Amino acid sequence: MAKGNMLIAQSGGPSMVINQSLVGAVLAARGCRAVGEIYGALHGIQGVLDERFIDLRKESRRTLEAVAATPSSALGSVRRKPTAEDCAAIFGVLKRLGARYFFYIGGNDSAETVHIIHQEAVKAAYGLGCFHIPKTIDNDLRANDHTPGYGSAARFVACAVKGDDLDNRALGGVKIDVIMGRNAGFLTAAAALARDAADDGPHLVYLPERAFSVEGFVRDVKAAVRKYGRCVVAVSEGIADKDGVPIIAKFTKEVDSHGNVQLSGTGALGDLLAGVVKEQAGIKRVRADTFGYLQRSFPGVASETDAREARLAGEAAVKAAVGGGVMSGSVAITRRPGKAYAVDFGVVPLASVAKETRHVPAAFINKAGNNVTQAFIDYARPLVGPLPKCERFEQLKK
Amino acid sequence: MAKGNMLIAQSGGPSMVINQSLVGAVLAARGCRAVGEIYGALHGIQGVLDERFIDLRKESRRTLEAVAATPSSALGSVRRKPTAEDCAAIFGVLKRLGARYFFYIGGNDSAETVHIIHQEAVKAAYGLGCFHIPKTIDNDLRANDHTPGYGSAARFVACAVKGDDLDNRALGGVKIDVIMGRNAGFLTAAAALARDAADDGPHLVYLPERAFSVEGFVRDVKAAVRKYGRCVVAVSEGIADKDGVPIIAKFTKEVDSHGNVQLSGTGALGDLLAGVVKEQAGIKRVRADTFGYLQRSFPGVASETDAREARLAGEAAVKAAVGGGVMSGSVAITRRPGKAYAVDFGVVPLASVAKETRHVPAAFINKAGNNVTQAFIDYARPLVGPLPKCERFEQLKK
Repeated sequence: MAKGNMLIAQSGGPSMVINQSLVGAVLAARGCRAVGEIYGALHGIQGVLDERFIDLRKESRRTLEAVAATPSSALGSVRRKPTAEDCAAIFGVLKRLGARYFFYIGGNDSAETVHIIHQEAVKAAYGLGCFHIPKTIDNDLRANDHTPGYGSAARFVACAVKGDDLDNRALGGVKIDVIMGRNAGFLTAAAALARDAADDGPHLVYLPERAFSVEGFVRDVKAAVRKYGRCVVAVSEGIADKDGVPIIAKFTKEVDSHGNVQLSGTGALGDLLAGVVKEQAGIKRVRADTFGYLQRSFPGVASETDAREARLAGEAAVKAAVGGGVMSGSVAITRRPGKAYAVDFGVVPLASVAKETRHVPAAFINKAGNNVTQAFIDYARPLVGPLPKCERFEQLKK
Repeated sequence: MAKGNMLIAQSGGPSMVINQSLVGAVLAARGCRAVGEIYGALHGIQGVLDERFIDLRKESRRTLEAVAATPSSALGSVRRKPTAEDCAAIFGVLKRLGARYFFYIGGNDSAETVHIIHQEAVKAAYGLGCFHIPKTIDNDLRANDHTPGYGSAARFVACAVKGDDLDNRALGGVKIDVIMGRNAGFLTAAAALARDAADDGPHLVYLPERAFSVEGFVRDVKAAVRKYGRCVVAVSEGIADKDGVPIIAKFTKEVDSHGNVQLSGTGALGDLLAGVVKEQAGIKRVRADTFGYLQRSFPGVASETDAREARLAGEAAVKAAVGGGVMSGSVAITRRPGKAYAVDFGVVPLASVAKETRHVPAAFINKAGNNVTQAFIDYARPLVGPLPKCERFEQLKK
C-alpha cells in the first residue's frame, strides 16, 4: 500500500448520481491511512492542467452528503480529449503534488485518459494508482452490466413518457419524444418502462442500433394509430439510415467540439419527424418534444439503486487502489445470475472499457426494429426502480 | 336544493392535478343527497355531444384516490370551442339525462362554455346549476390569485431549471430554456424559484408581457456571461416583438386548431435563439431545450399545495351548486392578506373569468424586462412548495 496524496476529478456529461461516486471515493479515502491530501480538480483534466484544486478533506460530512444527493458534477466537468502532451503535463502535475492515487469519473474517453496517464507513470517508474470510475447515462461502457448514471436518466425518461402517454391519451394524435443516445439506445429503450397496460405508450421505440427508414416509420405510425387511435413514439437522437448517416445530419450542419454532429440541445429531429408524419400520414395533431439536458440533471427523480451503486463504485475504486493488488483499472459492475437482483463490483483493465462503446444487444430489440423485448424490460426494471403509480378509471380499462 | 343528476367533464390542456378537482367534486357529490347519477363525459363537451359517459358512482374510493394522484385528464380532454348550436345540443343532452348539475373543469374558454350553457338553461326556464372549476398551468384566469395546475407545472419548471443550472455550471456556455406560456409569463417566471445563491441561474427571464428584442437579448446574454462566466436563460414560448408579432411566427407557419401559431411541441424557438447567440455573441457552446408537454404531465413532481387546492376547488364547486344560493359561477381562489399563506374558495360570476386572460402584473417584472422581482418570488414560493435540496462544496461558494 503506497502512501501518498490523491487527486480526483469528474469528466463528460453530468449525471444525477456522479456526485455519489465522488463522495463515495472521498469518504472511503478519508478512512484510509495510506491517503494524505485529497485534491479535487475543477473541470476535469482542465483543472489538473491549470492546477485548480479544492481540498476535499476540508468539506464537512454534512456537505459531502448533501453534494452526493445533488445532480451534475460538483467539481465541474470538461469535454476535452487530452493529447499525448496533455497527458505528460498532467502526470507532471500529479508528481509535483505527491499524488500516488488518481481517480477519474467518466465514460470511455475518461478511461482512455486514465490509461494514457498510467502509461506515463509506468514509463517514469513512478508508482501511481490510476483508476477509472464509470459514469454514463448512455450505459455504453463495455465490460459492465450497466453503469452508474444510467438508472436515474432512464427513470427520468420512463417518468416523462408515462406522463406524456397520459397526456396523449387525453388529447389524441401522435406524440414523438426524442431521447438522448448517439450510438447506444439504452436510454430510449427505457421509455418502454412507462407501460403498465397493453395499450399504454410508447407504442413505437426506435434505437440507433437499427437502421431507420422514414417510410417504415410512417407506416408504423399509421398502423399504431389504426390500432390504438393515437400513438406515442420514443426515438433516439442518434437514429441513422442504412448507410449510417444520422437522420438529423441531413437537416443540420451544427457540429460539437469533437467534430460530431450536434444532436442534443436542438429540437430539429423532433420537428423533422413531426413534419413527416403530418405530411405523409395525414395526421393533424402531431407534436414532438426533445427531452434534452433534463434527462441527466433533473433533481428529485434519481433511481435509489443507481444512487447506491454510484456510491459503491466510488468506494470500490479507492479500495482497489489502496489495496495495491493492481496499479490501474476501471471499476466494473457485473450482475449475479438468478432471479433476485444483485451486483458485484470488480476491477477490469482500463483498455477493456476505453475507446469503443457498447450497444444494445440484439436480444433486447424486436424483429421489426421498432420496439424492445421483454428481456430488455427485465434487464432495466431493477436499475430504474419503481415509478410513480398512475391509475385509470376501471370503466376505461381495456 | 334541486334534486337531480350531475354531469362533469374536463377540458383543455391537462395538468398534474386536474384529476384532484374531478375526484374532489365526485366525492363531494357522492356525499350529497341532492345528487342522483354522476356522469363523467369523455373528452369534454365532445363526449356530451356524442353521449359517451362513464358512471362515476361505480368507481371505488381506492380507484378515485389513485386517479386523483395521476397526472392528465382521466376523463380525456378536448380542444373545442363549442358553437351556439353545440351549446344548444349540449343543453338538450343534459336535459334528457335529467341533469341538474353541470361541472366543467378547464380554463377561461371552458368558463365561457359553461356560461353559454347556463344561458340556454335560463332561456328554457330549466333549473341547471352550471359551475366552472378552474384549471390552467398558465395561471391566467382573472378573478383568481392563482389557479389549480399552476403550482405543479411551476414546480416542474423550477426543478428543471435548477438541475439545468447545475449542468451549465459544470460545462459552461449559454443554455436557453423555452417554457410554456403564450400570453402569460407566470410559468416562465417560476424558473426564478430555482435560485438559491446569488450566482445561480436563471440569469435572464423573458416573459411575453414585455416586448422582446433580439438585439437586447444578445446584449443581455453577453453581459451575463461577462458577470457569471456562463448564462442560463428562461424564455416564454410566446415572446413577441414590440408590434406583438411572436418571435417564432417569423420562422414557422404551423397553426393549431384554433388558428393560432403552434408554439408547443416544437423546438424551433429555442434553436432560433441559440443560433442568434452563437452568431451574434460569438459564444461557442450554446444549447437550447424546450420543456414542452413534460411541464404539465410529469408524474411525481406535483406541488402538495396545488394538489390540495385542486381537490378543494372541486369540492367547493359541488358545495356551491347544491347549496342553491347561486345557479352558476366559477370557483375562485383568493389569498388572505398577511404573512402566513392561506386561501379562501369563493364563487364568482362566470363572465368575470370567461374570455379574457390575466397577465403577469408589472410589479412582478423588473424594469429592464429581463427578470422577475422579489415580489413574484414571494407570490409564487408557497404555491410551488419546497424543491429538492441541492448543495455545492463550501470552497466553491461565492
